[in-house]
This record gives sequence, C-alpha cells and structure tokens, in this order.
Amino acid sequence: MHLCESGEGILERLDSGEVVIGDGSFLLTLEKRGYVKAGLWTPEAVIEHPNAVRQLHTEFLRAGANVMQTFTFSASEDNMESKWEDINVAACDLAREVAGKGDALVAGAICQTSIYKRHKDEARIKKIFRLQLEGFARKNVDFVIAEYFEHAEEAVWAVEVLKEWGKPVAATMCIGPEGDLHGLAPGECAVRLAKAGASIVGVNCRFGPRSSLKTMRLVKEGLRAAGLKAHLMVQALGFHTPDCGKGGFVDLPEYPFGLEPRVATRWDIQKYAREAYNLGVRYIGGCCGFEPYHIRAIAEELAPERGFLPPASEKHGSWGSGLDMHTKPWIRARARREYWENLLPASGRPFCPSLSKPDV
Amino acid sequence: MHLCESGEGILERLDSGEVVIGDGSFLLTLEKRGYVKAGLWTPEAVIEHPNAVRQLHTEFLRAGANVMQTFTFSASEDNMESKWEDINVAACDLAREVAGKGDALVAGAICQTSIYKRHKDEARIKKIFRLQLEGFARKNVDFVIAEYFEHAEEAVWAVEVLKEWGKPVAATMCIGPEGDLHGLAPGECAVRLAKAGASIVGVNCRFGPRSSLKTMRLVKEGLRAAGLKAHLMVQALGFHTPDCGKGGFVDLPEYPFGLEPRVATRWDIQKYAREAYNLGVRYIGGCCGFEPYHIRAIAEELAPERGFLPPASEKHGSWGSGLDMHTKPWIRARARREYWENLLPASGRPFCPSLSKPDV
Amino acid sequence: MHLCESGEGILERLDSGEVVIGDGSFLLTLEKRGYVKAGLWTPEAVIEHPNAVRQLHTEFLRAGANVMQTFTFSASEDNMESKWEDINVAACDLAREVAGKGDALVAGAICQTSIYKRHKDEARIKKIFRLQLEGFARKNVDFVIAEYFEHAEEAVWAVEVLKEWGKPVAATMCIGPEGDLHGLAPGECAVRLAKAGASIVGVNCRFGPRSSLKTMRLVKEGLRAAGLKAHLMVQALGFHTPDCGKGGFVDLPEYPFGLEPRVATRWDIQKYAREAYNLGVRYIGGCCGFEPYHIRAIAEELAPERGFLPPASEKHGSWGSGLDMHTKPWIRARARREYWENLLPASGRPFCPSLSKPDV
Amino acid sequence: MHLCESGEGILERLDSGEVVIGDGSFLLTLEKRGYVKAGLWTPEAVIEHPNAVRQLHTEFLRAGANVMQTFTFSASEDNMESKWEDINVAACDLAREVAGKGDALVAGAICQTSIYKRHKDEARIKKIFRLQLEGFARKNVDFVIAEYFEHAEEAVWAVEVLKEWGKPVAATMCIGPEGDLHGLAPGECAVRLAKAGASIVGVNCRFGPRSSLKTMRLVKEGLRAAGLKAHLMVQALGFHTPDCGKGGFVDLPEYPFGLEPRVATRWDIQKYAREAYNLGVRYIGGCCGFEPYHIRAIAEELAPERGFLPPASEKHGSWGSGLDMHTKPWIRARARREYWENLLPASGRPFCPSLSKPDV
Repeated sequence: MHLCESGEGILERLDSGEVVIGDGSFLLTLEKRGYVKAGLWTPEAVIEHPNAVRQLHTEFLRAGANVMQTFTFSASEDNMESKWEDINVAACDLAREVAGKGDALVAGAICQTSIYKRHKDEARIKKIFRLQLEGFARKNVDFVIAEYFEHAEEAVWAVEVLKEWGKPVAATMCIGPEGDLHGLAPGECAVRLAKAGASIVGVNCRFGPRSSLKTMRLVKEGLRAAGLKAHLMVQALGFHTPDCGKGGFVDLPEYPFGLEPRVATRWDIQKYAREAYNLGVRYIGGCCGFEPYHIRAIAEELAPERGFLPPASEKHGSWGSGLDMHTKPWIRARARREYWENLLPASGRPFCPSLSKPDV
Repeated sequence: MHLCESGEGILERLDSGEVVIGDGSFLLTLEKRGYVKAGLWTPEAVIEHPNAVRQLHTEFLRAGANVMQTFTFSASEDNMESKWEDINVAACDLAREVAGKGDALVAGAICQTSIYKRHKDEARIKKIFRLQLEGFARKNVDFVIAEYFEHAEEAVWAVEVLKEWGKPVAATMCIGPEGDLHGLAPGECAVRLAKAGASIVGVNCRFGPRSSLKTMRLVKEGLRAAGLKAHLMVQALGFHTPDCGKGGFVDLPEYPFGLEPRVATRWDIQKYAREAYNLGVRYIGGCCGFEPYHIRAIAEELAPERGFLPPASEKHGSWGSGLDMHTKPWIRARARREYWENLLPASGRPFCPSLSKPDV
Repeated sequence: MHLCESGEGILERLDSGEVVIGDGSFLLTLEKRGYVKAGLWTPEAVIEHPNAVRQLHTEFLRAGANVMQTFTFSASEDNMESKWEDINVAACDLAREVAGKGDALVAGAICQTSIYKRHKDEARIKKIFRLQLEGFARKNVDFVIAEYFEHAEEAVWAVEVLKEWGKPVAATMCIGPEGDLHGLAPGECAVRLAKAGASIVGVNCRFGPRSSLKTMRLVKEGLRAAGLKAHLMVQALGFHTPDCGKGGFVDLPEYPFGLEPRVATRWDIQKYAREAYNLGVRYIGGCCGFEPYHIRAIAEELAPERGFLPPASEKHGSWGSGLDMHTKPWIRARARREYWENLLPASGRPFCPSLSKPDV
Repeated sequence: MHLCESGEGILERLDSGEVVIGDGSFLLTLEKRGYVKAGLWTPEAVIEHPNAVRQLHTEFLRAGANVMQTFTFSASEDNMESKWEDINVAACDLAREVAGKGDALVAGAICQTSIYKRHKDEARIKKIFRLQLEGFARKNVDFVIAEYFEHAEEAVWAVEVLKEWGKPVAATMCIGPEGDLHGLAPGECAVRLAKAGASIVGVNCRFGPRSSLKTMRLVKEGLRAAGLKAHLMVQALGFHTPDCGKGGFVDLPEYPFGLEPRVATRWDIQKYAREAYNLGVRYIGGCCGFEPYHIRAIAEELAPERGFLPPASEKHGSWGSGLDMHTKPWIRARARREYWENLLPASGRPFCPSLSKPDV
C-alpha cells in the first residue's frame, strides 16, 4: 500500500502539496451497526465492542483515509465521568493499531464541552481539554484536532491548550456560511483559529457537502484578507442539507432518525472532492453519514492527482465500470461516467417533500 | 441473550407460532464497506476478509436475527469456478461461529444459476445445486434456503434437490406482484414450491417493503386457495420501490449506485414488520439495503409479541426515546412515537423526482 | 372556419369516423374569472353575466370545439328552485348563438340529481330530468348529454328519459377504473348505458387524463365483450390525479382551491388526445380544469387526422415554434417538439410532495 | 361599488394611505384564451378581438383592481411598425370604458424597447417612448407607468420622458434581488428612478411573489438609505420561482409552456398581499400568471384594512367558507382558514422535480 510510507507528518505532507484524506462517520455509522446510542453519542464502544470499532477504522483505511482519528468524541470528563480516561486510552490504541497497517497518521480529537453554553469558564474548560491532551501525549498521537465547535471562542481555547504540547494542531468548527452561534462570520472564525496557532483550519459536521464548501470559500477568503496562511480542511456531512439554517442538520426535522433520503451518493462525493480540491482544500474527509465508500469516492476522484487508488478500489470499478459485464444490456449501459454524473436519483417517496423547514 | 436457547429447529419455532427474524444485506452492505465488487456480487470476502464478514454477522445477531445465512450467494460452480468450494466451507464456518454466540440457527443458502436463462438443462442445474448442498450437509447447517429465483421452474428444481437431504427447506423468489419472469402469478409460484416440498415459502429481494408485502398477500391467497399449508417468509429490500416494474429494482435507473434516497428509515421497517406480522408472515427479515438497524427495527416492533428486545437495543431507545435528554428542547420534542411515525422525510434533493421510470 | 359546415349531426360525424372535439371547463374556469361560486357550483352566470359565459363559449369554439354544451350543470329543479327554468333557456340561447358562429353543434346537458343518494325515487328523479329535457327540446338543441353520474342506475334513468325525445343521446359517468359508487365496473356501466339507448358512452370529470383513459380501456373492453357498439367519449379533468381513490379529485386534499400544481400542460393534453385517438375514442374533450388552450392542444394534436387547425392556432405555433424568433438563443432552443415532449416541469414548491393521500 | 368613487388620482390615494390594487396578467392569460401569440407577446388583440380584452379588464375590475393598465405592452414603433398607433388608441379606449364602470383609474403603460440591448441610443429610444406618451396624453389617461425594464439606465430614460407630460409616473423594473442586468443593486435602481422623477417605484414580472418581495425589501432599504421618499409598488408573477437566477423566469426550462405546476394558489397570494402590506407596499398587483382570482385574493386579504370586499367576492367565500354546505363531510372540513393556510399542495407529478436549473 501507498499510505504514508514516508513516515512524514501531517504538515510535511500538506506543505509538499499532498492531498490528505480524512476518515468518516463513527457515531452515526456505529449507531446503525448497533454500538452507539443516539442522543448520548458517546464512544464507549471502544471498550465495550473494540472489534466493531477496529473494523470501521480498517474500512476507512482501506477506503483511502490517511488519518485515523481517535474515537474520542465527547469522551471528556464533563460528559463521561470516570470512564473518560479508559476510553481515551482504548481509542488511541485502536487507532494506532489500524493506522500501523497502512502507515496512516493518528490524530487525537477533542470537541466542544457541554458546559460552555452555560458557563464560559475558560479555566475549567481548558482543564478538561488539557486532561484529554495529556492522554494523547502519553499515547504519542501524530497530531491533534479540535473539532465540532459552535463558538469560535471555545475553539480558540481548545487550540491554545493543544498548542501547549507542540505537535501540529488542526481546528474545525461545525458552522455553515452564516458563521458561529455568536454571529461571527466564517472568515473571522478562521482568522482567530489561525492566530491562536492552528496550522490547519476548516469546518466539519452539521452541513452537507455543498454547504460546507460554501463555508470554506468564506474561510479561505477570510484568511487571505487577513494575510494569514493555514492549510484548509473540510469534513462535511454525508447528507444533503440545502434547507439547513444556522444550526445545521440537527435542526432539521429528520435528525437523527429520518435522514436516509438525504444520504449522498458516491458520485455526489466525487463532485465534493473535486470542488474542494479546486478550492485549494487539501485535507478532505467526512463527518456524520460518511460511510467507507464515500471516503473511497474521495480517493478515487483524486487518484489522478495522488497517483494511486486506495486498497478498497480493488472492489470498485471507477464510475460504475464493474457493471460492464452484467447480463442485462440496459444495466451494462450504466457502466459509464456520464450516466452516473447526470443521474438525478428518485426517492421512491412520492408523499415526501424535497426540502424541510428547520425547527429553529 | 434470548436467542434460540431452546435449541429448537426452524420448523419447531414456526410451528409453535414464534416470530423468526432473518438477517439482512450482505452484498450491498459489504460493497459499501469495501469488500464486495458491484456487478460481480460474489462472496469471496469470506476468505479474503473474514473479519469483515464476521463483524456483519455479529451485527445482525445483535440486532435480533435468529438466522445466520451462509454468505454463499452465487458461490456455485457456474459462477466462481474452482474457488466455490473453499468459499462455501468458509462461509459455513463463519455463520456457525457467530450463530453459536447467540444460539441462532445457520441456514445454507443457494440461489438461481447463471445458466438457466440460456439452457433450461435440469440435470446440469440440479448438479450445481447438489454440489452446494453437499457442502452444507458436511457442515451440518440447520436448514437450507433456496432464494432469489426469477423463475418458479428453477426454484422448484432447487427445492427438489434440497429436499434430498432431509432438513427443512425454505424457498423464496425475487418476484413482485406481477409474478415470475415466465408470467406465473405469485400464488401459483408458491403453490409449486410448496408442492415441491418447501415448508417455508415467500419472497426476497428485488422489491421494497410495501411491494413485497403486496406479493405476500398473493402468495398467501394462492396457498389458501390450493388448500396448502406452508409457513410464510419475507425478506424485502431496504429500499422503497413503488416505481418498479416486473423486474424489480435492478431495472430502476438508480441501481446499484444511486439508491441512497430510497433507503428505508427504521420507522418504515417497523411498519413493514407490523404489516407482515398482521398478514401472518412469521419469518421476517431483509435483503439488499437492510442494514443491522433495520433488522433491529423488526425486533423492536415485534418485541411485545416476542417478549424480549434484541441485544443491540441496549443502544437504542424505542421510538427515539434516547433524544429525551438532548440539550435542545426542539430535539427533545422528537422523542416520541407520533413524531417519527408521521414524519415525511425530505430528500434534500430539489432537482430530483420522487419516482423513476424503469429501464424496461 | 371548418367547423361543421356540412350541417351534419353528431352521429353522422362519428359514424363517418370524424373526430369530434368537445368543450372544456365552465364551472372551475368561471370560478377563477369571478362568476361562479365554489361549493355551490351552479350556472346562474348565464343570466347574471352572459358576456362572461358567451366569451368562454367563444374561446372554446376558437380552440376547436365542435360542441357547445349548454351551461346547465346542476340547473335542475332540485338544485336551483324556481330559477332553473330561466337558466336553461338562457344557457341554450348562449350556446346556440356562439355555435352558430362556427357551425358547431349544441348539446343540452343534464347531470346527476342531489336527491338520488338519499332517495332512489325513480319517478321523481325522472321527472326532474324530463323537465330539463323539455326545455332542450323547445330550444331544439342538436343532441343531449347525460353527464357526471356516480351511479350507473341513475345514469340509466337519465338516458331513458333523454331517449324519449328522439335525438341522439350521449352518456358519461364520473367514474375511474374502480367503477361506480355501487361497485359496478366501468365495462358493466357502459353496457347498461348502451343498452338503455345511449349512442355515445364514456367518462367525464373527477379523474385526470391518464386515469380517464385507463377507465376508457375498460369501457371499450366491456362493450366489446358484450357485443355492443357505441361511440366512445372522454372528457377528463385538466388536472393530474394519479393519487385519486374511487371518488376522484374531490377527495384529494387540494380540491378545490389548491389544485394549481396539478394543472396539465398543453403537451400533456396532446399526449392525452393521441392516446384517446389510438384507443378508438372519437369524441374527445375536457372537463374541470380544461382551459381553452387545452382544447386547442387536442385540435392541434389531431390536425393531421382532421386536416385542419382550429382558429385559435393563428395564435399558436405548434410545439413551441413561436419561440424561434426570440432574442435569447437558449429560449429559441425550446422551439421544438422534442424539448416540450420531454420536459419534466418543476413545481417551484420544494416543501410540497408529489402525491397526496385522498381524504377517503 | 366602492371603487374610486371619490375621483381621486393615484397619488392622492397613496398619499392618504389607501391600498391601491393593480391588475394582473394580460399576455399569458390571453395566450391561454387564444388571443396572443407566445414568443411575439404583442397586444394586437385590442383590435382583433376587443371583446376578449374587454372581458379580461372587466374580470380584473370585478376582482378588485383599482387600475386598468392599457394593454400596450410592446406596442411601440420598434416592435409593431405601423400598427402601433391604432393599438395604443384602442387599448386606451378599452381600459377607459371598463374603468368607468367601476370608477377605476387608467394607467398608460410603456416598457423597455427591443433596441436598447444593441444600441444604447438615448435619443432614439426616448423618441419611441415619447410617441407612446403622446397617445396616452391625447386619451388623457390618469397616470403613466414605465414597467418591465431590465436596465435602470433605460428605465430612467423612460421616466424622464413620461415626466414631460406632468401626470404621476410609476416605474417598475423586472429585476430580482440580484439587481439589473448591468449589476446595479435593486436599492440603487430605485434611487435612480426616484431621482428621475418617479413617484412610485418597485418591481414587476420575471420573479414570483416571494422573490419579488425580497427585492422590494432591498428597494425600500435603498430609498431609505438615500433619504428619498417614493411610494412602493409590486406586481409579481403568479408563478413560484425559487430557482430563478438573475434573469428570472424566462430562463427557467418551463418558460413559457410548462409553467403550470408553478401557478400560485389564492392562498399563496393572500400571503403575498399581507407581506407586501406589512413591508409598506401600498400598490399591490400582479403580472404574468396573475389570473382574476389572484387579484381577488389580494382584495380579500386586505379587506379588513380597506373596509370592503371586491364585487367578485359575491362569488367567493373567504378562506373556503363556500364549502361549508357541501354534502361530503370531509369536504366541509376544508371550509376553514387553517386548512388552506397549511396545505402543501401536491403536483400529481411524481416524475418531476421541485426545482429546475435555469438555462443561464
């Protein structure tokens, strides 16, 4: 396999112009597999069902991911009480174990706290972040990510803590084109994160591929206007959300148990990867709803630039070419790029609308 | 766990009025996970990536499945040449290993041959079936299933071969309300299968939940009119297909790489399970597109009748009840049955239609 | 103008194989113009606003209609008390005045009574029909139509009364493929009407173009099986109603004030005219929702068979050809049959479904 | 009738805070009635078929319109050669004749020339405008409207010419929120029109109710920011166009022969009227697609403010109240405001999308 054989770190790779492919959805995917509880959205599966987590890491690695994020979402002291420490240890071990099979990088990931909304207590919140960081440091992850922040202020605190260790810091907020929940525009959010020390900035979750790229254009423009340099990163939802308001998909009436009709096809994701690349984003992955085949679609779309296909493409003909040996001629006729690029897939749901009004 | 602790066989369970829950999608699910090639649709993953197959079996078991079908679809001599034998052995071992963890039953499964359409050579086709059956007999599966037949004639041949062994035989055809590809009505197909010796008859694949139940009503009526008794079985697609013609979902323009907007929600599947039960069907499972959480939805819907929930319901609050502790009040408001039962989920795809015209 | 210059009657025309084009919507069209009250649906406009009624007759004549139906829907004693007689007189005069300008035929039209549902009092109901018929006879209309019957029994009574006069009788029921409200199949309804003496039988109102033609196929088959001969007639709604139940469009939640998105395009109607013709229907018109341009679409589609275009085609280029001089090239590109035949028009309503569930 | 009995002019009425209701669609409505040719879109019907034009004026008057615009769209020398003068005379006579029956005002209307795009020849274009104005002056219309301008520059020239006469001038552009075709924002367009002397400014045509009000908010804000005072006027399309680009509905693939599914319901228009009123717009009418019942919907929505209903409301129960005597209880249940306000009408077109991509 081609993955990271050089042993280079995240910044070396991005600095040299490489495309880094992130991984995809853990919480929602493992919910559907039976290992995560919706509503709680906590990663105790790393202890309870390590095989299930290992398998999902493996699938993302095979699909072409160059980063294994530790499955530590919400695994902080404020959310998980005494269990948080064991979970962080187990999550790091699983990510490293699988990453080693492909020489991918391991990223320790923290996210917003549950207490910021009630008490903007910088010291207390930074302490929570620091506890998780110490775990990552002990396990010597390759870099760290502050992700899923609704408020730039808290994201900046996270970056400040993560910078204390010395490894590269990536920071992504779960915002759309309207900016953070305090009304700060995406460009300004990005500027603050970069100034706080993040080498990689962008957005993750809450918004679909198209909306997230719209936000990334504002992020890029904000950094440019401020004369700042940072690598760009995007990890969109695997759901189409043209009807989202400021809060993103959680405010849609379909969240979280009726999102099926919104799931992106692999062709939607190839388009997303291409547009992200054209925009200058070089760290491209996914968030909730991004299944392994979506990550593979990124890797396949950017194979010409990267020079190789991911392992899982052994089981996938580009643009449907695997259909060319089908016994039915009208199905063989679908074995071409033009067909899938132009398909407007039906929902099979004639009593359903195409857009929803968000709850707020 | 409650699964099959009695050690009873499939017919004892069905005869006593128990609900038997089948498993779900292997080919399409493992394609998305990176282990099966679309177009070929063969199960070499049992040898190449046994962990991935074991994991999926485990997920279905946790979701409540009482049957582990051997992942031997198309694994016959005509499709896989010399590899077929090793694949059958490995598939039986994997199914048995996981079934043992829940005391579920193992079913050896065969499907239509690739040669029937060209040569209706009964002797040759029966020989192919017999080779697979011998493998199942050596591994001593608990019962056998002839599934995914487009023509009643070939399905009858399969049943006749399977009956040679002596264990119970189930038979399902991949037909819709219009009947088999020779124009035989569903009721007549069922009569022939029952007369050939199948103790369990029904349909699988090719059509969504609603269409498959429509077919099952015709199956039931056909058997009743002929004065025959057989247990009823349904394993529908996890996709909505109101627009299908006689050939089912393969003729839809979205097949197989644009089916996402058609994926059923868990609530759609609860409705399917309830309607199947009310119709008298007692072997209820899924086929392509049925993910583990869809199987769990069957088990949850029928928990009152069965008296227990499946293991994976540890991670699932019935009817969205897990949302009742969400921090946002409008999301808490979704933690109730009425909400999800009445939701008409949007596709997020305003340029797409709700129905497609089949290619043939 | 070419209209009826021969002075031939309705049966001579149909017997010779001519296509007779009916007129379209009066009640719903005049409601939108401000002259009819929804809910009441009575034609007092013929007295109150004769210019508005004359204008609409004129538009249908220009569009190609060969029949001017008297605007006497519900203008019977049971619905309109003492006013009914004056209305019938005025309606006949208006229809004759306009018909004379194009030499079209005048048809006196009666419909089901409001009392049949409560009292199946044949004598009383026939007396109501007879009163209207006497008015038509005094005004010497060219033929008579019994239309909009939900029950074959009452329709037969109407035909029996109309036959007393001696002029040709047409009879249409407002039923769909499921038949009349007593459960009588369309074929059987047609047989009874033909046996009662109707020379022309078919359906009008309640169902859209596609559904009405489906019913007509059953009508045709019923007559054929019974060895009866009758001319076929169809006057469908100008609305698409694939989601209707037995009662037709009145049971759709959009009836009567939200039907706009269902209005047929002129191209939909050309298709309807062609399919009706191919089925052997030779009296082709419309009912509620059929605007003058829809009638023109019938006349344009069948111009090759008939040998002439209607007067209003002076103002209409076939298949959009009037656009070929547009200043914008992309609009000029729409001046061709293929474009309009294949257009799938968007609703501009992303929060709306494509189908509704009928209220009953 | 209540209409304009005071004999007051347009500015007196607006200055006193009255709501003035404009009229609706002539070209598209008369195309459907058989009197206007699509593509040409010229008003020779005033000479060829004066009854048809008179009838439409009458319907708008009955529906509540306080202004009869002369049907002189494109009736300028550059479009109609020698015929233009007779058409202008006939159109003024027809408008005055009908206006007199309700004491409504007559507005002479001019629109953009066909030559501006090729030659921005101010002198020549102003001469064309002046010729039409002279006709209006001879016929002594009550005020003049410059409407349907894509470029503010040409609209300003029109206003400058119209101001020469001395009667009040209204000016509307056919622009959306993105502004004119030279890229001038709606607020700036409005400022220029007001500075040129228009007492009433706003938008007409090309965009649906919702989009047009979005533009009007920008118009209002532009005038406010510039410290200018002008009355606000809106005459939106009767079609929903959320998917329009800068050029408006002519760029949609459905224009002009497939717009049916986009037609607004009366309830959509009541909402439009209310929102326009709340925004401070006091001259509220419609453009293409606005049928008489749409104008009536404006008059009914604003009846509480105006103190009276229009004549045509004799034939319309507010909010569907005419259904309360229907024989079917489920239809009676629709006789209430809440029902119609919340209805999401289905298209009956499951193979069609809800949005289209504009051609440019």
